[in-house]
Amino acid sequence: MTLLLGEIAARFGLELRGDAATPISGVGTLEAAGPGQIGFLANPRYRKQLAETQASAVVLSAADAAHAPGAVLVSRNPYADFARIGTLFERREKPLAGVHASAVIDPSAMVAATASIGPCVVIGPRARVEDGAEIGPHCLIGEDCVVGADCRLVARVSLVIRVTLGARVLIHPGAVIGADGFGLAMDRGHWLNVRLDNQIQIGHNVRIGAHTAMAGCSAVAGSARIGRYCLIGGGAGVVGHLEIADKVTITAMSLVTHSIREAGEYSSGTPLMNNRDWRRAAVRFKQLDRLARQHSPGSEVSHDD
Amino acid sequence: MTLLLGEIAARFGLELRGDAATPISGVGTLEAAGPGQIGFLANPRYRKQLAETQASAVVLSAADAAHAPGAVLVSRNPYADFARIGTLFERREKPLAGVHASAVIDPSAMVAATASIGPCVVIGPRARVEDGAEIGPHCLIGEDCVVGADCRLVARVSLVIRVTLGARVLIHPGAVIGADGFGLAMDRGHWLNVRLDNQIQIGHNVRIGAHTAMAGCSAVAGSARIGRYCLIGGGAGVVGHLEIADKVTITAMSLVTHSIREAGEYSSGTPLMNNRDWRRAAVRFKQLDRLARQHSPGSEVSHDD
Amino acid sequence: MTLLLGEIAARFGLELRGDAATPISGVGTLEAAGPGQIGFLANPRYRKQLAETQASAVVLSAADAAHAPGAVLVSRNPYADFARIGTLFERREKPLAGVHASAVIDPSAMVAATASIGPCVVIGPRARVEDGAEIGPHCLIGEDCVVGADCRLVARVSLVIRVTLGARVLIHPGAVIGADGFGLAMDRGHWLNVRLDNQIQIGHNVRIGAHTAMAGCSAVAGSARIGRYCLIGGGAGVVGHLEIADKVTITAMSLVTHSIREAGEYSSGTPLMNNRDWRRAAVRFKQLDRLARQHSPGSEVSHDD
Repeated sequence: MTLLLGEIAARFGLELRGDAATPISGVGTLEAAGPGQIGFLANPRYRKQLAETQASAVVLSAADAAHAPGAVLVSRNPYADFARIGTLFERREKPLAGVHASAVIDPSAMVAATASIGPCVVIGPRARVEDGAEIGPHCLIGEDCVVGADCRLVARVSLVIRVTLGARVLIHPGAVIGADGFGLAMDRGHWLNVRLDNQIQIGHNVRIGAHTAMAGCSAVAGSARIGRYCLIGGGAGVVGHLEIADKVTITAMSLVTHSIREAGEYSSGTPLMNNRDWRRAAVRFKQLDRLARQHSPGSEVSHDD
Repeated sequence: MTLLLGEIAARFGLELRGDAATPISGVGTLEAAGPGQIGFLANPRYRKQLAETQASAVVLSAADAAHAPGAVLVSRNPYADFARIGTLFERREKPLAGVHASAVIDPSAMVAATASIGPCVVIGPRARVEDGAEIGPHCLIGEDCVVGADCRLVARVSLVIRVTLGARVLIHPGAVIGADGFGLAMDRGHWLNVRLDNQIQIGHNVRIGAHTAMAGCSAVAGSARIGRYCLIGGGAGVVGHLEIADKVTITAMSLVTHSIREAGEYSSGTPLMNNRDWRRAAVRFKQLDRLARQHSPGSEVSHDD
Repeated sequence: MTLLLGEIAARFGLELRGDAATPISGVGTLEAAGPGQIGFLANPRYRKQLAETQASAVVLSAADAAHAPGAVLVSRNPYADFARIGTLFERREKPLAGVHASAVIDPSAMVAATASIGPCVVIGPRARVEDGAEIGPHCLIGEDCVVGADCRLVARVSLVIRVTLGARVLIHPGAVIGADGFGLAMDRGHWLNVRLDNQIQIGHNVRIGAHTAMAGCSAVAGSARIGRYCLIGGGAGVVGHLEIADKVTITAMSLVTHSIREAGEYSSGTPLMNNRDWRRAAVRFKQLDRLARQHSPGSEVSHDD
């Protein structure tokens, strides 16, 4: 498909400086785009590439426009407008409506005739897929889930149970939605059993004791040994080849890099802050050793862990 | 199903204050539960919802019981007891025993007659699935794995190779267990090839140089360029549109927000600490800029990165 | 398979101290290896196991060699050499070439006759799989992707669209490569729709407002409520049972542990540093409360969040 540069400018309400009759057949990065393609400049660290771009036109801010070697489309948000222009040239073919022969659909589920259901999709009891929805390969639509009109589940998306998506929701591969959560909080020190939440990963040769639970997105690397009655919080990480004693709790998104010999609760990270304040604290963190030395000149950093 | 409030109290050993004959047919949050349902109060931030709840009874602590508008079940662990009560009303039907027609089972695998194997499940050589186990849709049971009696793999769980699960283990969607690990540590500066571990994600238009490895759960956002002989640690993140030089190591769970021009090892985060000590340090982190200014009144924060 | 210890030493260029005629049939950890097996010592924390190992030989450094009870293979990188030796005894059978009956392959895709395509694999339009490549169960090879010769995709790997893998790339389960990215950056405060990127996870009973987007690998635990026009950065986490107001941005890999009532940008974590400098700052972080007290002796830690 080829469009004229002037058509594109008009379509998205962008100011064109250059030849409106330039033919355009695609988009690319500033570095990669060639004749017939549109590039963009949004991130200042790519500004140096502007002078040498081979693109037929560049989407950029008014401030950068003067430095462009050729035609420009002036935008208040160059990246967003570039992304929109890109969709005009997208090669993706909308899949045909219908259900692939390899899909497994529960008889009580309802799938709109205009929806598209890809290979190896599994749709559970009483689920509903509405008009125009695209369910890509390997998606799971669990029982009592609803996928609204014109949603697009690209591939390998899991809607676990009783999830409702409104219209036009876009979900990318690997997403797990509506998982059971980590409901059965530890009670008087025990779970019924080992419990491993969604998206976790456990390396080879790991041993996990009875009554231990790992929350969503946590990870344990190879050959680690985790005791009994432990709780590994969401997103926490445990490096390999170490041991964690019984009754240890690791709070969310903490990283364990040494063996833990004593029961208790352990944490790493910093608290959430307003980004402006956080930036100041973060800079001070980088100065921390210098600040501490100034404060007590003879002090030594002792690597006590 | 409907139960009487008194039956529920007796079943879980909870003190009932209110009418034992109240019919109960389900559970819900304090805000959402209506007549005929039981709510709970565990987190103090929901205490203000207690006065207005429409629930027929509320599971809560002795300290909160006086403030409830109606019947209460007094618990030492309200959330755990509420979760247990909820299981009485769970709608989930245990699937029928048997193997779905779309499952692919190696002839050398052994599946108990009382186990349930869902759609698109793949079971490899010499694997064993024991009595009463439920293997949900899209699970993978790799070679030489054992799934103990009454385990439940909800959906899309990967047991990679030689994993042994004891009885009654519960695993949620997306989990990857027993992956190969990140064994071949870098040797004299090189790996045999690019190596991408489990649960990682790599955005569009990313380039990764030869002999570079990404450990489990690491992620690289779109258009980043990673050099050769790099090692991205477990759970580490690289934001988009930046460059990383050759021979860069990023330690586990670090975040890269700027391009890295020089070979070397880079880190972010804080060390693991006892939670009590960590809380004190975390509060001080928030005060860090103020503390530094008090210490050297004329000092400026320089945004040097 | 059984090899002689001398053969193994010669094959990998390792110095053997001990009986070259010792038969070896496998490998194991220092603790688990028995007669006929080779163990290794790389991590100092396992040094105490050396005296009691039952292994017929141990791969270790020259410095550790003197302390071994029996035969040793001296290595400059014991773990890497051990891993190489292990590959000699790997039980994994290379799968037969050919396409499993349950795989779904687009007619326009090209699969080399020497490649192996496992159960439930889906290969899209115009994709290409080259000689000797192994595509394990449940992998997705999206449209226009290329899998180079002798690549191994273990299982459940997603190549989303237009991904090119060179030769001999190894990818583990759960990896998502070439996802669409998070392209449509927020423009004048809105996205077209809810947008959920790859590898994310969302717990049960979560509500997400319109025009909110979650970047790759972010996670929201159960019963959280996220407002409209929010942006949850890559790898960020939101704990359960809290609320986030409209127009809140959470930067990448930050952790939200409290409700956020005001629009704005929020962060946690520390900036990336050279590992040497980071170690010093990390130690100081652990001392932070003590340093602050020394500085202003009467100061109290106020738990203001």
